[in-house]
This record gives sequence, structure tokens and C-alpha cells, in this order.
Amino acid sequence: MDMLKARSVLVTGSNRGIGLELVRQLSEQNEHPEWIFATCRDPEGSRAQDLKDLAAKHQEVKIIPLEVTDPSSIQAAAARVTEHLQGAGLNLLINNAGIVRSSTLESEMPEKMSEVYKNNVIGPMMVSQAFLPLLRRASQESPQKGMSCSKAAIVNMSSGAGSITDLLGWDFGQVINYRCSKTALNMLTRCQSLGYAGDEILCIALNPGWVKTDMGSMMAPMTVEANVQAILNTFGHLSEKENGVFLNWKGMILPW
Amino acid sequence: MDMLKARSVLVTGSNRGIGLELVRQLSEQNEHPEWIFATCRDPEGSRAQDLKDLAAKHQEVKIIPLEVTDPSSIQAAAARVTEHLQGAGLNLLINNAGIVRSSTLESEMPEKMSEVYKNNVIGPMMVSQAFLPLLRRASQESPQKGMSCSKAAIVNMSSGAGSITDLLGWDFGQVINYRCSKTALNMLTRCQSLGYAGDEILCIALNPGWVKTDMGSMMAPMTVEANVQAILNTFGHLSEKENGVFLNWKGMILPW
Repeated sequence: MDMLKARSVLVTGSNRGIGLELVRQLSEQNEHPEWIFATCRDPEGSRAQDLKDLAAKHQEVKIIPLEVTDPSSIQAAAARVTEHLQGAGLNLLINNAGIVRSSTLESEMPEKMSEVYKNNVIGPMMVSQAFLPLLRRASQESPQKGMSCSKAAIVNMSSGAGSITDLLGWDFGQVINYRCSKTALNMLTRCQSLGYAGDEILCIALNPGWVKTDMGSMMAPMTVEANVQAILNTFGHLSEKENGVFLNWKGMILPW
Repeated sequence: MDMLKARSVLVTGSNRGIGLELVRQLSEQNEHPEWIFATCRDPEGSRAQDLKDLAAKHQEVKIIPLEVTDPSSIQAAAARVTEHLQGAGLNLLINNAGIVRSSTLESEMPEKMSEVYKNNVIGPMMVSQAFLPLLRRASQESPQKGMSCSKAAIVNMSSGAGSITDLLGWDFGQVINYRCSKTALNMLTRCQSLGYAGDEILCIALNPGWVKTDMGSMMAPMTVEANVQAILNTFGHLSEKENGVFLNWKGMILPW
């Protein structure tokens, strides 16, 4: 079985939920990455305590402040990561940070639509732009042919709710702000997959499924541990065949 | 051949391009609608002269100021349209207004992304919310069974550039701001088609194709006259079978 063997990984929104569990499981691997950049909006806040506890036990976990809606914060984070990497590239960028605002078709508000789009689409776009030089470096320095998450990749955390075809969970929550943002993130991913193909940077949109987190609620069928195990397993298997596609946590292709 | 027989139609962004031509051809039909509400941002501006000339010749054309990013402007427009209709409903709402900002994947800016999303997605969402009572009234007062553009419909002007599957025109223009917005508009359309199905309001996303307009440039293969003829012909044929789909100007179904 192929395993993810990235030397460096960055996870946004890593103080909670799937982001935190990704950092935890990556750091607990026998052959863990040399650098795990765990970013979050407010590392000094009370909601980052679990992440700080994790970083205290694993020196490869570097906590980096990053507010994905703030260009200057993104630039500062990229500068700090570049410093840590000491000339090496970044193999895997996981745009995991995301928000949702409760709404229905009739109650949806322009402010919520804008806020969620800024966090879920414009944020990942700007973060990818800022880390592109490091992803390119990782791709160039890799002896590996083709594409993989171990070499150079952008994973955008999408959602089944963002599938225009399936419209998953409509009866559970209409959340127009979230659905429109995740669909747009899927489009961004496809654009990135074309734009960065020459650099051999793999770009995928991932639906993590419905998971027991603050966002997913305790009604969700999957534990975050099992979910992230499946996601990391999927990361180990991806190649250029999956460039620009929409996958679920198990690596199954989903309709747009 | 089925013809569009709407008593009332509203077209946003109707001072130029496809919007203006829709108003022109609708007003020149033998059995034209009783009310053609032609909205634009600035009816007093120089770019609205053609529309004003048209309205001077056709009394059924009512020019209404409407800035789709401004909730108070939308409310004022809905109030004026309600007044004109004197108790009747609105049969067909065409969310045609839209913008694009030149960009590539690497040069894309957060401000452009936000501005285009506000115009192309949040605008149509708010306009649809504001005109929903009039669309519902039109649906209720219609003796016709099923759905049609003559009874009650929302048409959102999308783009082939918004198809995640096809990514039309990538080599011509990456325009991430536009692509992400049109994909999100497609999602909004699907959500509207589910949310308003009980009211028998038909909701479709329409790709008008590449047309010789200010936006499409003179390189485009289609004249706006031929394009709008095809679009109006398509409107005459749509039924509940097409609810929530993505169509081109000829009525062919497109992949998301």
C-alpha cells in the first residue's frame, strides 16, 4: 500500500476538527513529515489549546498564525514557513479552514454570502498563490516522476453539499452561502489543476464527508479519527490521474 | 412551435448587450408582453441611451433603476414593479446583469473576486428573493398546469466558462473571478429549483454562448440578434423537465 511520504505539510484551520486530527495523525506516524505547519487564526486563543498541547509533544509540529481572509497574514505565514524550510519546498498544502453560516434560501443574507465566500474560496486562492513558490520548489527538487501528494499538491477541502449534481444534505440544511462557496471552490480547484499542471502540482477537491466535528455536529455518522485515517490513506494513492477531480474521503470520484 | 407568452418580464442589466436585445425583441413581438421591466444601474447615464430610445417607442417597456448589489435599490425596484403590475404577478425574471474582471490564476485579486461574486451571485439571489412574491402570484393566478417561462420562472444568465466540467475558453481567459461566480450561480439555480418547486416556479441556468457584445468582444462568433432569437425560442419550450438544469441558448443541457 502506498503511503503519504511528504517531507512537509501545511494544514490551515488546524486547531479543531478535521484539521487538528490531520496534524495529530501526521505527527504520530512512524515516518512522520519533518515539518507539519499547523496554521490557525488565533494560536493564543483558548480554542487552540489542543493544538498547542499537540505541538508541545511533537517538535515537527510548527504552529503558524494565519487568517485566510487577510493578505498580510498570509504573506507573513508564507515568510515564516519559508524560513523554517531552509531552502526546501512545501510538498502538501491542505486548504482545510472553512466556515458555514446557518441559512435557508429565503433567509440568506448578502453579508453571510460574502463572508463565507471570502473564507472558503478567496482564502484558499490567496493561500495557494502565496505558497506556490514553495510548492514549485518541492516539485522541482523531487526525483519522483508524475504527480503525488508526497511530491507537490494542493488539497482543497470541499463538501458533498457543494456538488451541484447531488446537493447532499438539502433537507438537513439549505445553507446557500456554504453550498455556493464549496461549488466555487471546486471550480477554483479545476482551474488550479490546469494552471499548475506544468509545475506537476496535483490539485484536488476533497469531500471529507459528514464527520463528528463542531461543524458536522454529533449527528454525523463518522468519527474524525476514522475519517482522517481514510483521508491520509487516500492521499497516499493519488497521482496525476486524479488531477483536477472531486473525491470523497475514500478516494471515490464525485460528480461536480 | 411553442412561444413565450409571458404577460410580464423583467430583465436586469438591460441597457446593453444581451439584456438590451432581449428587451428589444420582446417589445417587437406581435403579441408582446404587457409589461417589460428593463432594469439597469443608471438609467440617466449615457450608456442607457439606447434603452431610453427603445422605451420611447414601446410603452410596455418600463425602465426601472436597479443596482443588483444594493438591497435598498432592489427593494425600491420591487415596489415600483409591484405598483405597475396593479395586482398581477411577474411571469419571468431574467437575472442577466453580470460583470467580469480580467485576471489569471496568478494575478487574481481578492477585491475582484468579491466584487464579481457580489454582482453575479449575491445580486441574483437578492433580486430573486425580492421578486419571489410576484413570481408566486404569477404562478398562482396561472390556469396552466406544470411549469413554464410563460407562467413563472427565474432564468439566471450563467456562462460556459462556469462549467467545471468543460471550463470553456480557458486559453482565451482564465478569469477566475468570473468562473467561480458563474459556477456558484449554477449552484444557486439548483437550490432555487428545489426551494421554489412547490410554488411551480421554473428555475434554470442559461449559458448564452459567446456573443458579440461589450463583454464577449467582436471576436465572438454569434451576433446578439441571432443569439437572443434562439434564447427566446428556447424560453418558449421549457417545462418542469428542465427545472434546475444548465442549458445553452439552443436549449441543450450542459454538464455542471
